[in-house]
Amino acid sequence: MSILITGVAGFVGCNLAAAMLERGEEVVGFDNLSLGSTSNLKSVRGHPKFVFDVVDLADIAAYRRALRAPHSRSRITEIWHLAASSDIPAGIADPQVDLRDTFLTTFNTLLLMKELSIDTIAFASSSAVYGDLGERDLTEDIGPLLPISNYGAMKLASEGAISAALESHLHRAFIFRFPNVVGVPATHGVILDFIRKLRATPGKLEVLGDGAQQKSYLHVDELVDAMLFIRRRSSDKLSYYNIGADDKGVSVRYIAEQVVERIAPDARIAFGQGSKGWVGDVPKFIYSTAKLSNLGWRPALGSAQAVLKAVGEVAAQESGK
Amino acid sequence: MSILITGVAGFVGCNLAAAMLERGEEVVGFDNLSLGSTSNLKSVRGHPKFVFDVVDLADIAAYRRALRAPHSRSRITEIWHLAASSDIPAGIADPQVDLRDTFLTTFNTLLLMKELSIDTIAFASSSAVYGDLGERDLTEDIGPLLPISNYGAMKLASEGAISAALESHLHRAFIFRFPNVVGVPATHGVILDFIRKLRATPGKLEVLGDGAQQKSYLHVDELVDAMLFIRRRSSDKLSYYNIGADDKGVSVRYIAEQVVERIAPDARIAFGQGSKGWVGDVPKFIYSTAKLSNLGWRPALGSAQAVLKAVGEVAAQESGK
Repeated sequence: MSILITGVAGFVGCNLAAAMLERGEEVVGFDNLSLGSTSNLKSVRGHPKFVFDVVDLADIAAYRRALRAPHSRSRITEIWHLAASSDIPAGIADPQVDLRDTFLTTFNTLLLMKELSIDTIAFASSSAVYGDLGERDLTEDIGPLLPISNYGAMKLASEGAISAALESHLHRAFIFRFPNVVGVPATHGVILDFIRKLRATPGKLEVLGDGAQQKSYLHVDELVDAMLFIRRRSSDKLSYYNIGADDKGVSVRYIAEQVVERIAPDARIAFGQGSKGWVGDVPKFIYSTAKLSNLGWRPALGSAQAVLKAVGEVAAQESGK
Repeated sequence: MSILITGVAGFVGCNLAAAMLERGEEVVGFDNLSLGSTSNLKSVRGHPKFVFDVVDLADIAAYRRALRAPHSRSRITEIWHLAASSDIPAGIADPQVDLRDTFLTTFNTLLLMKELSIDTIAFASSSAVYGDLGERDLTEDIGPLLPISNYGAMKLASEGAISAALESHLHRAFIFRFPNVVGVPATHGVILDFIRKLRATPGKLEVLGDGAQQKSYLHVDELVDAMLFIRRRSSDKLSYYNIGADDKGVSVRYIAEQVVERIAPDARIAFGQGSKGWVGDVPKFIYSTAKLSNLGWRPALGSAQAVLKAVGEVAAQESGK
């Protein structure tokens, strides 16, 4: 039996593949390489239990062909669906991006699971499904769910389609609502942005917004650990969990300061105005992880430590270029 | 200025068009006629302020052409998006139906509103977004939202996309979560089903499930009235309201009995087993209408009266064939 990871060449996907292979699983990985990169697969490419295919999951005929190909001696029994367009501003400029890469990939995955009798899905959802609920504690059961980015809307749409599929053909589903995740290989996100900006103009770091935006951050190693923990421990038909740091997070100002200290201690930080970095960005954010704590998992690193670790890793990644 | 109604040839659409014309509005109506029918438009077709076009909204190029056509002397400033596949079981058998007709129609509507600077949308959502939350009171702000039908999932997806669009290009949005609606012209639903079954086999009415399913029902005249009331009275950027009867509803058994009494008093009612009529059907259902009451609107008829009135109307409709 093997496990399919979609979006395997992305930031989380490649880390998940490595962790699963380490645990002895057979892994099939698909990616359209639009945001992901084969360079992210360096550590797993040669593994005897890993097979990789370039597949555009929004194209259902191509997806079906790839799923039916004899990837390994064992058949796919479970799909970890991580493929999505992780570029939120791009999805606001052109909503078709998220429709196609974030939602239709999920929709096609469910259609093909029905066709091929694959009955277990694990889905990378997002805190973006919550929209902007102000100072309220974001538990998994909160409402209303009114996302403020098209990315969040298409993640919510995916959750809904999975929930409905459980009523007909799926046997089990895991919905993981990701927080902001940091680590390597960094492909996007605030740490990478800041490091690249600072390398381009070493004397000054320009920050969108006033730097007061506060969010929690989790290191990718811990995200992967939490997902595998939930997969092992939860026995619900539908397991839906926030995954995140156990704290109220850190500000963008803190991240900017850590990057400056690491890369160019003499640089000046220039903050913008307003509380939002971009349209669709949620300024403040209190993410409840009580449900996951109750299941028995807690992160080893808080948001500040995760950011600090990732700043070092991303700086090293960028130096290596 | 004119108002576009999508799905205008459907059950609710044609009633809404008539009500708007009566209030002096100019109305443009689109429908793909897949479930709707031009016979539903008899009462409005000749009206000097009504224009109708057959358009498949899932085809964005066709939709764009239709929107740009010079329908009237005035431009469209507001879209009432009612088009959807209202056939829930069909959407479970083939999820593509709801993807296309329930969700992509919304997605395309939003894309074209951005293109053409139309900034106000009113959307026919559904109690199906709530899934099966058991005995909980279904207020608008309840969570989690885990629909159990693909129809509900695609309505939830539509709500999410509208919510995200409000953050970028929309000025105002109205989300109406419809209950079960009864009245004429009936195109689907339990009353029509029962009447047709009973005419086909007059001695016996077979009912799916044990008849204990309890739901609230609203008459279509009141639904239209409530929507127009919310449009006038609510000043929120995003107004989202349950619309429904002010009671806990009536059972399927009650509806079956009313139909039998009206159509064939001597017929026997044969109930099936289990609490659900079909996959994706929510067996019990406590719909809160407190938010709408607080705004100042209450239905004149309770669920039982609405059903009784509709049984008479649908029976007359079917006799006329």
